[in-house]
Amino acid sequence: MLTVFGTVALDTTRTPFRTETRILGGAATFASISSSMFAQTSIVGVVGSDMPAEHVRAIRSKGIDTKGIVTVQGGKTFHYDSTFDYDLSNRITNKTELGVVAGFDPVIPEEYAKSEYVYLANNDPKQNVKILRHFQSPKLVVCDTIEFWINGSRDDVVRMIGMTGGVVINDNEARLLCKEANLAKCAKKIMSWGSKFVIIKKGEHGAVLFTNDNQVFPAAAFFLDEIVDPTGAGDSFAGGFLGYIARSNKSDFATMKEAVIYGNVMGSFAVEDFGVKRLLSITKEDVEERYRKYRNLVQF
Amino acid sequence: MLTVFGTVALDTTRTPFRTETRILGGAATFASISSSMFAQTSIVGVVGSDMPAEHVRAIRSKGIDTKGIVTVQGGKTFHYDSTFDYDLSNRITNKTELGVVAGFDPVIPEEYAKSEYVYLANNDPKQNVKILRHFQSPKLVVCDTIEFWINGSRDDVVRMIGMTGGVVINDNEARLLCKEANLAKCAKKIMSWGSKFVIIKKGEHGAVLFTNDNQVFPAAAFFLDEIVDPTGAGDSFAGGFLGYIARSNKSDFATMKEAVIYGNVMGSFAVEDFGVKRLLSITKEDVEERYRKYRNLVQF
Repeated sequence: MLTVFGTVALDTTRTPFRTETRILGGAATFASISSSMFAQTSIVGVVGSDMPAEHVRAIRSKGIDTKGIVTVQGGKTFHYDSTFDYDLSNRITNKTELGVVAGFDPVIPEEYAKSEYVYLANNDPKQNVKILRHFQSPKLVVCDTIEFWINGSRDDVVRMIGMTGGVVINDNEARLLCKEANLAKCAKKIMSWGSKFVIIKKGEHGAVLFTNDNQVFPAAAFFLDEIVDPTGAGDSFAGGFLGYIARSNKSDFATMKEAVIYGNVMGSFAVEDFGVKRLLSITKEDVEERYRKYRNLVQF
Repeated sequence: MLTVFGTVALDTTRTPFRTETRILGGAATFASISSSMFAQTSIVGVVGSDMPAEHVRAIRSKGIDTKGIVTVQGGKTFHYDSTFDYDLSNRITNKTELGVVAGFDPVIPEEYAKSEYVYLANNDPKQNVKILRHFQSPKLVVCDTIEFWINGSRDDVVRMIGMTGGVVINDNEARLLCKEANLAKCAKKIMSWGSKFVIIKKGEHGAVLFTNDNQVFPAAAFFLDEIVDPTGAGDSFAGGFLGYIARSNKSDFATMKEAVIYGNVMGSFAVEDFGVKRLLSITKEDVEERYRKYRNLVQF
């Protein structure tokens, strides 16, 4: 089993072409829907009573165990409001309202405790560290983090990384976290804190996997003619990556390389429509077909 | 035969670690040394009497026909002075002294006229258009351009592109030229001016090949632990790309994909030392070995 912990959110996303208000979003939402294409997935998160029941039903419709989603009566769901510029590559944060996420003391349903794989999606690093105590002996814990926590709680982020086997992180956030421009050096620094591998996500430029035995795997991104909403691409990447690892139940270098490609594939679906809309509509066959297309695309 | 036309320069290159003054550089120099690893190469360019004879001898030492290098007695060689920042990714131009390049009326030795392949390296687009008249019927003409000409002579750049089969260009220069942020849209715009394919170079993120029959090939860059001097990486890429095409004497999509990889390989050598130092020292075996390493690196 793979358990994903992180934000289950309402997103307001503004692009030059359309604005969507308070749609289903959140790092754990994207990651769990993505990983559910590969492995039995459970989700842990907290929402307010303003979270429409249909949104949780949508997550559950993918076979995801949603017992771990706690609803705080009278509380406000995490709300993220952002605007993309005209080429959809730069995002400006308009508002981050933590709501019920602030001060959440994570608990997990008893049956999640035996999860072999745990993904700590973007979330308060203190909570991410806390929740790990509830798992018996996961084979692999992977985390992500963002600017918000790096700026506000850098020491906690470093401590969290020390308790994981792998880190999946954006290029600019890796640079900010490590105070270092060169991505290979960033990866080395992150691994010096205890993580065994690092995947640096570079958006339209793909991703690079670094391991602590000095192996490297650069992967170009899947090529799309049209991007609708980049929100959640990185979380979907991470869900696809760890979902594939969980399905394979091994994490040697060859498996991790395949997992990076499946991560790319899931990220490429996520951006084809607003929010999780596209991810909710695809089948396992769609995933395999795009994997074959990707292989064909980069082959020479 | 492949003929390369463009700047043969003296470069002053400043990195946070070392400064090299008036070393051999220039787009045509890098491109021709790179292409000479694959195909019989001739070079056309203009230098002043301040160009040390040993520099021209160094180019000739790679089997390149240098009869096309015109020396203007009393003239000053093109001089480019630039500084890289601490992570070697951003370059600031301190000085561009055109010298004898300004107003050069390109002529070519008679025996170059039958060249099947012509590379118009970064140079005055008006001169690039002029020189094409001297070739009988080249199978493929490829060009590059830079910010300097896009800002100063955009119409000439567009006209030049209309006379080529392919364009090799940096990501930011493509954006500047096309007034468009999305690179796929830039490629389409450039092809609408007459070119059949476009390769957009993205530095450490590799390169993407676009063709006018809607094929795409994204290639990650070769991964290097240490970069000494990024100068000439793009020109070396272009030389390797067109050199491989010339050696294969065909330019179908499969051949172009291989050529992109060889371009990446040559670019990766160029940055390992200052100026053309590393390119001058490598053998064909080194190129093939790195090609195999690259294939192994990106394989999954």
